[in-house]
Parts: sequence; C-alpha cells; structure tokens
Amino acid sequence: MTNSIDQLPARQQQALKTRSRLLKAGKEIFLENGFQKATISQIIKKAKTGYGTAYVYFKNKDELFITLMEDLMNQFYEVAEMPFKPQTKDEAYENIKKQVRLFLQLALDEQDMMKVVKEAIGVSPEIDHKWYMIRERFIERISVDIRYAQVQKLAKQHLDPSLTARGWFYSNEMFMWELVMNEDKYKMDDVIVNLTSMYTGGLYE
Amino acid sequence: MTNSIDQLPARQQQALKTRSRLLKAGKEIFLENGFQKATISQIIKKAKTGYGTAYVYFKNKDELFITLMEDLMNQFYEVAEMPFKPQTKDEAYENIKKQVRLFLQLALDEQDMMKVVKEAIGVSPEIDHKWYMIRERFIERISVDIRYAQVQKLAKQHLDPSLTARGWFYSNEMFMWELVMNEDKYKMDDVIVNLTSMYTGGLYE
Repeated sequence: MTNSIDQLPARQQQALKTRSRLLKAGKEIFLENGFQKATISQIIKKAKTGYGTAYVYFKNKDELFITLMEDLMNQFYEVAEMPFKPQTKDEAYENIKKQVRLFLQLALDEQDMMKVVKEAIGVSPEIDHKWYMIRERFIERISVDIRYAQVQKLAKQHLDPSLTARGWFYSNEMFMWELVMNEDKYKMDDVIVNLTSMYTGGLYE
Repeated sequence: MTNSIDQLPARQQQALKTRSRLLKAGKEIFLENGFQKATISQIIKKAKTGYGTAYVYFKNKDELFITLMEDLMNQFYEVAEMPFKPQTKDEAYENIKKQVRLFLQLALDEQDMMKVVKEAIGVSPEIDHKWYMIRERFIERISVDIRYAQVQKLAKQHLDPSLTARGWFYSNEMFMWELVMNEDKYKMDDVIVNLTSMYTGGLYE
C-alpha cells in the first residue's frame, strides 16, 4: 500500500508532519500533566516548533485537545456503528453484550487519556460541548438500532427510541467513567452482563 | 410550636443566626455569579459580617457551598427514602414512576441552584467528591428496594442489586442534568414513562 502522504507536494507533507508532531507532543504532555496544568509552551517545546507555527494548526490548547479527543472517539464510533441486524431476542442480547464489552474495553485501553478527557470536560466549556456532541452521535446511532428492532417486532412498540437510547447510553457512559476512575471496584464481566440484561429485558418483547 | 433556636443561650443563638445569614448570602451570590466567579468577599459583604467571623463557620467557599448542597440534597433524600413495599409489579411500577417524577420535579424546582452545582462539580474536587458520596447514598438506598423486590419474588433473581441500582441511578441522574440544562428539549412525562418502563421491564418478572 502507498502511504497517501507520499503523494502530496513536499510543503504539504511537511505541514502534515508538523501537525502530527504537535498532536503527539500534546498527547504526551496532557498525559504527563493533566489538562489544566498542560501549556502550549510545553507542547511546542516537545514538538520542536514555534508558537507561530503551532498557531497555524491549533488556535489554543483546547482545540489541540479536541483533535486528540476526535482521534480517540473514532475508535469508539467504530464500535457504535457495528452492523446490528438481529433476528431474535437472544441474538440481540449477544450483539449488544459484545458492543458493551468493546466499548468498556476501549475506554480501559485508553484509561489514562480518558482520565484527562474527564478532567478537561469539567473545566473547558468547549470540551464539554464537544463531549455533548459525541454523546449525541452515539445516541442517534443507538436510536437507529432500536427502531430496527421495533420494525422487526423484537422490541416493545410503545417505547420511544430516542429516549430509550439516551437512557441506555447514560448507563454505559457512567459505568465507563466509573471503570476508568476506579478500575478495581468492579468486575467488568458482571457490569457487562447486568447492563445488557437490564436493557434487553426492558426493551425486548 | 416552639422554635428550638429560642431555647439556646443568647451567644449560641447569635452564632446560629450568623451562620444562617452566611448561608443565605452565599446562596444569593452563587445564584448571581455562578460558583467560580463567586468570592468570599462578596458573601461576607452581603451577610454583613467579617472574614474572621465567616472563617469560624466555613473554611472556604467550597465548604460553604457543600453545606448548601447538603440542604438541597436532604429534599432529594426524602424522595429516595419513601417507603417501597409493592405487592405486585404494577404497584412497583406506579411507586417508581412517582419517585422519578418527584426526583426530576425537585431538580427543576431548584433548577438555578442545580446549574451552579453542576458547574461546581466540574471545577472543585471537593465538591465532585461530595456529589460522588451523595450518589452512593442514593444507590445504596435503591439497592435495598431491589433486594426487597427480589425477596418478594417480584424482581428477577439473577440481577445484581447494587449494579442494577447504579445503572438506574445513572439514567435518572443524567436525565435530571439534561432537564436542568435544557428544560424545553424534553416532555417530562415522556421521560418519566420511558425511564420507568425500561427499568421495571428489565428488573421485574
């Protein structure tokens, strides 16, 4: 496979490399110092570039962090957007259990970065808003899966897909934060089975 | 009814009055300026007292705010601690629906103060911890109700009371914040019915 960067003119290749060096340095500094204590000076020093150059790519620390969050979230979206076409309640249960496991496992694989995300949400309104938008994308996708299950007559017809998706995402999100912050407090398997049983028991006929 | 303050020696009466004046002034300042922008100077000025006096009652802004949160939470605890002794699944559904409504309604009645609580949780680790402890108290109480329903053979035996209580509280809490921040985005009745249906459908036989 050819790397698409190699096809670009030299100046654009350089630009992409600088941007990616800033992101890499940013991630290291955020992981080391947390969000609030990290500074742009630390990041450009580590990326071996200047303020002016950095500013071309990222207006400020929040914007750089949001780009890192987006990279991280793309992995989560892949889980959320897994095909969901169950033919039976049992199949739905197995699919959903698998999704919950992948979602929680991803968060634990990126545990240190997720801790910084949590800190950043609390202190930066821009990042809080970004998290809000990420959440809405998950909820929208879950609503689609619920509507599918209702059309298939697997799920109860009287439930509102969008509110149900929201409640379900909230439980998952909050358990995810709990696991990220206190990994040893819970047995991951118990959390997964309990969440999935409650959800499919409530939603499916 | 005699007011119990009247029974105390004059000096203690004075102390209680000062403390309560500080709390009242604090609440007004927090509602006006938000948590971060509020200062102890503004509060003591409004309470017509001095720094030294204020310090006797509250070590800092966070401590005064936590006391206000506790007063607010006592109203919520009353809802959480309502007797729960259903004999049938339908009775459980009605009881739970009523509790959810009271919980969300209380949050909306105190909407402005809850917004300040949300802001404060994000920026003060002490207040974040306090909120964590409040949440644990709710979850503990819900676990008791779930165990009761399991003993009565109304609720599914294989579900873990504590994890189920946690997931349920999370959904309620997050909808509560959503309603507090964007009241007009949802129909409260739809939220209550959907939450309660999903929960009782998942938990009860």
